[in-house]
Amino acid sequence: MVARLMRLLRPPGASMVAGIGDDCAAIRGPKRGHLLLLKTDCVVEGRHFAQQDPARAVGWKAACRAVSDIAACGGRPGTALVTCVLRAGQSGRWLDELYRGIEKAGRKFGFHVAGGELARTDGASVVSVAMVGQVDAREFVPRSGGRAGDVLFVTGVLGRSLESGWHLKFCPRLDEARWLAGRFRVRAMMDLSDGLASDLPRMARASGTGFAIDPRLVPRRRGATVGRALGDGEDFELLFAIDPREAGRLESSWPRRFPTTRLTRIGVLAERGRCEGLGSAKGFDHFAR
Amino acid sequence: MVARLMRLLRPPGASMVAGIGDDCAAIRGPKRGHLLLLKTDCVVEGRHFAQQDPARAVGWKAACRAVSDIAACGGRPGTALVTCVLRAGQSGRWLDELYRGIEKAGRKFGFHVAGGELARTDGASVVSVAMVGQVDAREFVPRSGGRAGDVLFVTGVLGRSLESGWHLKFCPRLDEARWLAGRFRVRAMMDLSDGLASDLPRMARASGTGFAIDPRLVPRRRGATVGRALGDGEDFELLFAIDPREAGRLESSWPRRFPTTRLTRIGVLAERGRCEGLGSAKGFDHFAR
Repeated sequence: MVARLMRLLRPPGASMVAGIGDDCAAIRGPKRGHLLLLKTDCVVEGRHFAQQDPARAVGWKAACRAVSDIAACGGRPGTALVTCVLRAGQSGRWLDELYRGIEKAGRKFGFHVAGGELARTDGASVVSVAMVGQVDAREFVPRSGGRAGDVLFVTGVLGRSLESGWHLKFCPRLDEARWLAGRFRVRAMMDLSDGLASDLPRMARASGTGFAIDPRLVPRRRGATVGRALGDGEDFELLFAIDPREAGRLESSWPRRFPTTRLTRIGVLAERGRCEGLGSAKGFDHFAR
Repeated sequence: MVARLMRLLRPPGASMVAGIGDDCAAIRGPKRGHLLLLKTDCVVEGRHFAQQDPARAVGWKAACRAVSDIAACGGRPGTALVTCVLRAGQSGRWLDELYRGIEKAGRKFGFHVAGGELARTDGASVVSVAMVGQVDAREFVPRSGGRAGDVLFVTGVLGRSLESGWHLKFCPRLDEARWLAGRFRVRAMMDLSDGLASDLPRMARASGTGFAIDPRLVPRRRGATVGRALGDGEDFELLFAIDPREAGRLESSWPRRFPTTRLTRIGVLAERGRCEGLGSAKGFDHFAR
């Protein structure tokens, strides 16, 4: 669907470093060596949150989804704009709580809310967050830079995001991603939003490679089967590919720096056409009917 | 409502030149003398467009609303992100047409679509456009810079935007606004989205002034009464306040530069507390139930 829409658009200008298909759009800003990172992300009632979910958690989730994408590019978030389309019956108090959740994320991850919009709908509520971040061009990590032989890692544990409530209270891996981008040759990185089984093939496709993982190595949340760890989605963990000569140094220095965030080597990017380890697992397609 | 939400947020950082309550957020970018302009704007099915409206026109409107806000700050649009939340039954063809309308606006007004998101809803469709623009800091025009005595102008004609179809096919006054910001001491400017009767008091409040207009001078679309010209909204014309010493020069040079866009002097900003000429006219409040 996205590929089809891309054909309707003019080719991007020379100022666009990454665009549709990456975690963020990356644009050369007015200052040399600096990239602006742009991301919009939305949560829809009945899809990404339930009517009875606390509004503060919905606000946290809406903001942190965008933070997670900025992080996955190696950047820092700076400014957010919030668009709330509310159905009849959703109170001013709900909106206050939503903003409290967004503001809490802003304090933790260093962005300010600079504006937004309120509208009403006769349908389901939608909260959309547009986030602007920045990154030093040398630390920008696209989804597309992986090479065959790069070692694949994931942070945290995967699966059962909905049942465990993780999808509402997750902590985007901003510190981890900044540390990685500044110290290692991370060649490709993305956040896991649709499940490893959807997202890893996307990274491989963008990089022009295949992949070979051992599904038994994929770190699982308590109670999650391998299939659910691969397919559930909404993990908001990092998946990245790193120069194999640096994998050992990473594994030895990570635990001291991030003692509470697990780091797991799950496999490698492989030559194009080789796709091993996902079996029949399928990630989540937000746009499937 | 917006004022209430603002109290929940931290005060903006030093990098924020304009924020909530202005047409755009304006942020100091990494380069001195340059401001980034950020805007999100959304259109909701059943509110801002009807199910039977052509998708291409809906796309044009969604994009041009954001362009209009960037223009009203004196800036130029550069990059757009598009979030489409579509109800069941809205086809891929509808989405193609929507993107064609957005892309048409991009060609005309100089922005690129750099990404976005697709999601499904069980309710009404929503199209949200996040636009990033830029402006030389010396040409940035806030809503809040007006002074008592400044002369008020509007472009175009007002009222009956829905019936006439203008709300779907309007042309944002980007060229006009850029020309004004570069050549005149425009002290305050905004685009008219909720109707002069709502928007003029907002400009006066932001500027710490009152206003005195002659409602008979307000330029009306064919068939519009004074009340409808003041209150209908979705005009997407410019309202601006200019140093009175420059009003004559503006009026004499405008017609040569913009022969097809009417320019009308409607009154002045006045001392605080004086609010004349709107009578009981009321603009549109998108957030009223």
